[in-house]
Amino acid sequence: MKTLPKHKIINDPIYGFITVPSKLVFSLMEHKYFQRLRRISQMGFSYIVYPGAHHTRFHHALGAMFLMQKAVQVLQSKGVIISEKEEEALYIAILLHDIGHGPFSHAMEHSIVESVSHEQISLLFMEFLNTKFNKQLTLAIQLFKNEYPRKFLHQLVSGQLDMDRLDYLKRDSFYTGVPEGTVNAQRLITMLNVKDDELVVEEKGIYSVENFLVARRLMYWQVYLHKTGVVAEQLLVRILKRAKQLVARGENLPASSNLQFFLQNNITIDDFSEEVLETFAQLDDYDIISAMKLWIDNDDFVLKNLSQMLLNRNLLKVKVKTKPFSARKVEKKCCKLIERYSITKEEASFFVFTGRLENQAYSMKKDTINLLQRNGEIIEVAKASDQLNLEALSKSVVKYYFCYPKNNKDS
Amino acid sequence: MKTLPKHKIINDPIYGFITVPSKLVFSLMEHKYFQRLRRISQMGFSYIVYPGAHHTRFHHALGAMFLMQKAVQVLQSKGVIISEKEEEALYIAILLHDIGHGPFSHAMEHSIVESVSHEQISLLFMEFLNTKFNKQLTLAIQLFKNEYPRKFLHQLVSGQLDMDRLDYLKRDSFYTGVPEGTVNAQRLITMLNVKDDELVVEEKGIYSVENFLVARRLMYWQVYLHKTGVVAEQLLVRILKRAKQLVARGENLPASSNLQFFLQNNITIDDFSEEVLETFAQLDDYDIISAMKLWIDNDDFVLKNLSQMLLNRNLLKVKVKTKPFSARKVEKKCCKLIERYSITKEEASFFVFTGRLENQAYSMKKDTINLLQRNGEIIEVAKASDQLNLEALSKSVVKYYFCYPKNNKDS
Amino acid sequence: MKTLPKHKIINDPIYGFITVPSKLVFSLMEHKYFQRLRRISQMGFSYIVYPGAHHTRFHHALGAMFLMQKAVQVLQSKGVIISEKEEEALYIAILLHDIGHGPFSHAMEHSIVESVSHEQISLLFMEFLNTKFNKQLTLAIQLFKNEYPRKFLHQLVSGQLDMDRLDYLKRDSFYTGVPEGTVNAQRLITMLNVKDDELVVEEKGIYSVENFLVARRLMYWQVYLHKTGVVAEQLLVRILKRAKQLVARGENLPASSNLQFFLQNNITIDDFSEEVLETFAQLDDYDIISAMKLWIDNDDFVLKNLSQMLLNRNLLKVKVKTKPFSARKVEKKCCKLIERYSITKEEASFFVFTGRLENQAYSMKKDTINLLQRNGEIIEVAKASDQLNLEALSKSVVKYYFCYPKNNKDS
Amino acid sequence: MKTLPKHKIINDPIYGFITVPSKLVFSLMEHKYFQRLRRISQMGFSYIVYPGAHHTRFHHALGAMFLMQKAVQVLQSKGVIISEKEEEALYIAILLHDIGHGPFSHAMEHSIVESVSHEQISLLFMEFLNTKFNKQLTLAIQLFKNEYPRKFLHQLVSGQLDMDRLDYLKRDSFYTGVPEGTVNAQRLITMLNVKDDELVVEEKGIYSVENFLVARRLMYWQVYLHKTGVVAEQLLVRILKRAKQLVARGENLPASSNLQFFLQNNITIDDFSEEVLETFAQLDDYDIISAMKLWIDNDDFVLKNLSQMLLNRNLLKVKVKTKPFSARKVEKKCCKLIERYSITKEEASFFVFTGRLENQAYSMKKDTINLLQRNGEIIEVAKASDQLNLEALSKSVVKYYFCYPKNNKDS
Repeated sequence: MKTLPKHKIINDPIYGFITVPSKLVFSLMEHKYFQRLRRISQMGFSYIVYPGAHHTRFHHALGAMFLMQKAVQVLQSKGVIISEKEEEALYIAILLHDIGHGPFSHAMEHSIVESVSHEQISLLFMEFLNTKFNKQLTLAIQLFKNEYPRKFLHQLVSGQLDMDRLDYLKRDSFYTGVPEGTVNAQRLITMLNVKDDELVVEEKGIYSVENFLVARRLMYWQVYLHKTGVVAEQLLVRILKRAKQLVARGENLPASSNLQFFLQNNITIDDFSEEVLETFAQLDDYDIISAMKLWIDNDDFVLKNLSQMLLNRNLLKVKVKTKPFSARKVEKKCCKLIERYSITKEEASFFVFTGRLENQAYSMKKDTINLLQRNGEIIEVAKASDQLNLEALSKSVVKYYFCYPKNNKDS
Repeated sequence: MKTLPKHKIINDPIYGFITVPSKLVFSLMEHKYFQRLRRISQMGFSYIVYPGAHHTRFHHALGAMFLMQKAVQVLQSKGVIISEKEEEALYIAILLHDIGHGPFSHAMEHSIVESVSHEQISLLFMEFLNTKFNKQLTLAIQLFKNEYPRKFLHQLVSGQLDMDRLDYLKRDSFYTGVPEGTVNAQRLITMLNVKDDELVVEEKGIYSVENFLVARRLMYWQVYLHKTGVVAEQLLVRILKRAKQLVARGENLPASSNLQFFLQNNITIDDFSEEVLETFAQLDDYDIISAMKLWIDNDDFVLKNLSQMLLNRNLLKVKVKTKPFSARKVEKKCCKLIERYSITKEEASFFVFTGRLENQAYSMKKDTINLLQRNGEIIEVAKASDQLNLEALSKSVVKYYFCYPKNNKDS
Repeated sequence: MKTLPKHKIINDPIYGFITVPSKLVFSLMEHKYFQRLRRISQMGFSYIVYPGAHHTRFHHALGAMFLMQKAVQVLQSKGVIISEKEEEALYIAILLHDIGHGPFSHAMEHSIVESVSHEQISLLFMEFLNTKFNKQLTLAIQLFKNEYPRKFLHQLVSGQLDMDRLDYLKRDSFYTGVPEGTVNAQRLITMLNVKDDELVVEEKGIYSVENFLVARRLMYWQVYLHKTGVVAEQLLVRILKRAKQLVARGENLPASSNLQFFLQNNITIDDFSEEVLETFAQLDDYDIISAMKLWIDNDDFVLKNLSQMLLNRNLLKVKVKTKPFSARKVEKKCCKLIERYSITKEEASFFVFTGRLENQAYSMKKDTINLLQRNGEIIEVAKASDQLNLEALSKSVVKYYFCYPKNNKDS
Repeated sequence: MKTLPKHKIINDPIYGFITVPSKLVFSLMEHKYFQRLRRISQMGFSYIVYPGAHHTRFHHALGAMFLMQKAVQVLQSKGVIISEKEEEALYIAILLHDIGHGPFSHAMEHSIVESVSHEQISLLFMEFLNTKFNKQLTLAIQLFKNEYPRKFLHQLVSGQLDMDRLDYLKRDSFYTGVPEGTVNAQRLITMLNVKDDELVVEEKGIYSVENFLVARRLMYWQVYLHKTGVVAEQLLVRILKRAKQLVARGENLPASSNLQFFLQNNITIDDFSEEVLETFAQLDDYDIISAMKLWIDNDDFVLKNLSQMLLNRNLLKVKVKTKPFSARKVEKKCCKLIERYSITKEEASFFVFTGRLENQAYSMKKDTINLLQRNGEIIEVAKASDQLNLEALSKSVVKYYFCYPKNNKDS
């Protein structure tokens, strides 16, 4: 890798200093597509519960790249050969792994676009940048797509213990002020090794792995799926759904032209031409919030009220249970609303609704966490744990929520 | 004070938990004018240098209120009598001290409005809220305006060692990842006392005070006045100035209606009717960024290019010196630009300009930091320090900067 | 409580400042029996693995008292009535809960004395101090012994979620540099409540409780029962056992007179007269280490070599397995040693031995952790957890270790 | 450098993990002379004021070595050539720089030995180890003695901004819980460079250097020269002085044989044969504390009482002023004591005495801190600072203390 002429370092509250490893990486960071991530918050509306959580996808991407540098150092010190090209590809792949996130990310995947995941869009961005940067991203893309023979390189980017997860758990727990959600990324990385081209954790790291899984579980239920954050996200999904309805009905809804485009068209992955990508690349949190600020003056009862609620943090009431809510209960709240505001049933359904939260602390769908025993053999972590029932952690936990308006009506 | 029925606590990465002290305070926090501070970043464009610095005025206000609770506890434990009414007034005054900040705060004071300070607007907001909340803010306003006989109460809100400064130094150093800029707020607060109704620091706190002043100086030169952050702020000032020019010329510039209002009118403090205040209350960082996003497609060479520069972090080059830059040098750069892009001299002046940075680590204009000696006498800290030349810290340091476009032209 | 004339505060790296709550507490802290805890390390020989772990019982006692102050504040703010006398008793009980620890604590309970627990000796100290302090400790002693009707007061001192555990987990993880072992004591305390005079945790604190149990488990297996620390402790136990043997045989072993007393006598709890207590009160880590420093020059092969090993950190080799080691394997190592050094079988057994490690992350023997549900009912935490198999955590994990000399012989 | 077969890492609460860089370094760490540093506290009796300050010279040496690894990385990334041999010599020199410290270090230099500095003894140890390790320490010794042509290598070990200072300021502020005394070692190291074989700091690091000097000053006056810590140290000096007197008079004072040796002989640097060194190598804090524990039962009024005071933290009263105390005042206190206890004037002088504290925040005696300007020229930092009067910091601050017994007499 060509190193930088000037030692480019960036302050980070968590790791101290992050060093940019090469000129190419620096150029990618300077590209406006990457700079755009400065305007996309990492945790969506979680700041409504945790006021410190305003960090961005930009910052997380840098942090994950920092951890990747550490992982490369550790593996190399253990004799794992990683070529300079592979090394740089790792940095690029992790730097760009989230570049496809839209504003308020997850909520967008089912409103702004039609079931297009951010990973799919990240890949489109990478391919676009690959053209612009003379095919220098080809290997990074292969790693990202898991099409490179040395599987552990992909696993460092996307796997059970990838640098993405290690950074976001650490960073999100730091910025929310939930210290018990932290993971000891340094220790986990120090315990990494490679066996038969697969990423493994040295046996003595088992307690750190357990801790990682339990911390992740805590972060999900206490932070990511916190009921107030869920309401906020659901409001946003409904605001955009309503906006699309109104636009479909021919109403002229104020919004930035880029947002207009996605309100007017149902974009699936097949529609993602270079032009669409460029339009998408101009969308960020600011388009959404600014639109909502315009919409609080809209005539539509639903759009106006939902926007006000979200902007002024005067949210719906929410209840969470382990069993589904009865249809009758929902019906009752709905009727009350219809009566009170003389709205239609469909309109009321934007304010009274139920939903489902689900999380697996240790999902074994994609792959498993494997330990390298002293005898050189591999064992799956759930089988190795002496006590903590890790298999229990691989079952889905499901909860149900029910949202409806508060009684008071002042703003 | 009426305490809250439910124990309302808020997570904070710095202090752990912040407890809301009373119902009234909670109601003020829930008001949309205060919630708006969630959309105003504490450090403006500093995140362009320090990617972690996305914390908000909202969060800072809560933090300062937390420190105020600590200060009240300490002073009461030393026998200083603070009534329940005074206590709540302190919390309200510090909570609302920054409520008048416009988007990207300081830059706004000379572009969005005409030389109206945020403190003036904070006061207008407080007075408005006082009406809405049945005069329950009267004492808080008195404290804020320093019209209450017990001067130390004002000094806790606004003075050399007020809770505002202690929180922002601590918080800004935390979020930027500049740990050496931190202050030991807990220790400084523990050393506070009151003598003749003036706030004093116990003598043995002298090293903490020195440290506070030097940390503050470091934060100014290394963070707040970091040259790259300065360029970004100057670009914003010029973008808004240009927008106002274009609007004055009759051009129809896209922007939110609230921002439009301030572009179309030169608002001074005398113009701040309740209506203007309400319009101002709807302005935040999102109006500015969204406008810039629209303006990158504008026909005006100046507006378009400045907006692109700031959004995509492709800033002007900047040099900083302790002596002013020669007019000839500026002229030369200017001519080059005029020639290259066939623009007018006035247009070029938006890209080539100089300016002045100034900071006093210890400004004695308003008041001084006074130590309480063991013999009960008061001594000003600069006189008490045995070695560190604190008087030197009270002199202004002035630096000069010079901005001009980079040579490369790709984006 | 009589507050202190001067605001007595103590710096703590973890909590910032610890305030001494009353004159009586301050006097107890100044007593030489409490000052002695400055010379008893909190974690015994763990510093041999974790070089930062040199904190003392003294510091831990202060930390636990700090957390008790927070717990009292939280409970009072929730309407739990705690009288001034009860409050002070809580502080005294937690301050003195570990005062009975001997040097290198746990190792001592089966060598210096004969199966006398440190809790028993703590109680003797408290009773002695109660006499000296005019019966002002009577209530504290009642709480400590769980003889006071309001059971939650005892549970705060000694229970599943007592201030002792919260502080030692936090402090030990801090000083060892094992951040993932930390617990969010502040959050757990904030969630405490009292129901029917029993300590309970509010339902929403369930993830914090899970995290607490898993962190505790991690600290046990990664830190407290770290194999190298275990070897060091076992060496110490054997050094003292050997010393007692030699003394019993009539040898004149150099040691402080206080240590001599315990080497010459087999002290059970029934022997603990005031005189014995006074002698015990003069024992600390320094007597043990200094004796070992004298014994490295002793003629006895066993005493000399074990002492050298421990002082110079040239320890035995240790293996850990989940199944017991075969007697044959042990025998073989033993024979090798006998042959090599021409020592007796009994002597060899000091260098070649096996043992058993056991830990329950969540022991339900004494009591359980109970959650207070929103409907006012109580539920045991293992029953409430939706996923994490907490019952699994209540089973004992047992491991076996096997120690024997390394092959090399230089020091 | 031969790297380690197994990746040897050590947990550190400050830096996370410290990696041992080579086999030779690991062997030196395992040597009993280095292991002895585990029994020598870094901050002497400061724990009497700051109960967290029980960290050891062992731990500090590791920390300084860690920072040296970072410094080498930074300099190499800037093109400074450092050979493998030089690199290892740096690690060895910094690891062993404090190996000559006696128990309670600084106090010892004028009591246990006669004006022998710990640096002189460190050198003796290094030379001894050099023989044992086949001359592999020769280059390290050259660096330590500043006899190697490339001066910056010595400056990294011992200079204005050496790794020793950076670690001890960071570590001591961490363990005492005085966060404002911390320095941003990472940033200072990142700013290091080499010009004409001298260590320099890049110009933009000036605020970090200022911060370093002011933090150091704070640590001196608030921590290292804290009046209570000073009393404790002075008591120790007097206890040893008295012990030597008594031994000289022929009394048989109990103590470890190693301590006996130094009480019986006045050892100067010329007396430091290999045998004396070996005896010195067996001295540590435990010999001193254990001796004091024996001496509290001694017949000598002075020895007995001073020992009790220090062990039970029942210290002398101390006053600190910027001007010397009058002889009359001292005389008066002395007379009172003579009268009260019927002791001689000489005996009384052990309890009533005055002294002098002195510190320069920025001593320019040895060398200066030099900045590397962008034009490639060097400027001394005091000349470069725009405001903070650094020359003021180079003046000595002197304070005077006066110690005498408290009035109460119970223990």
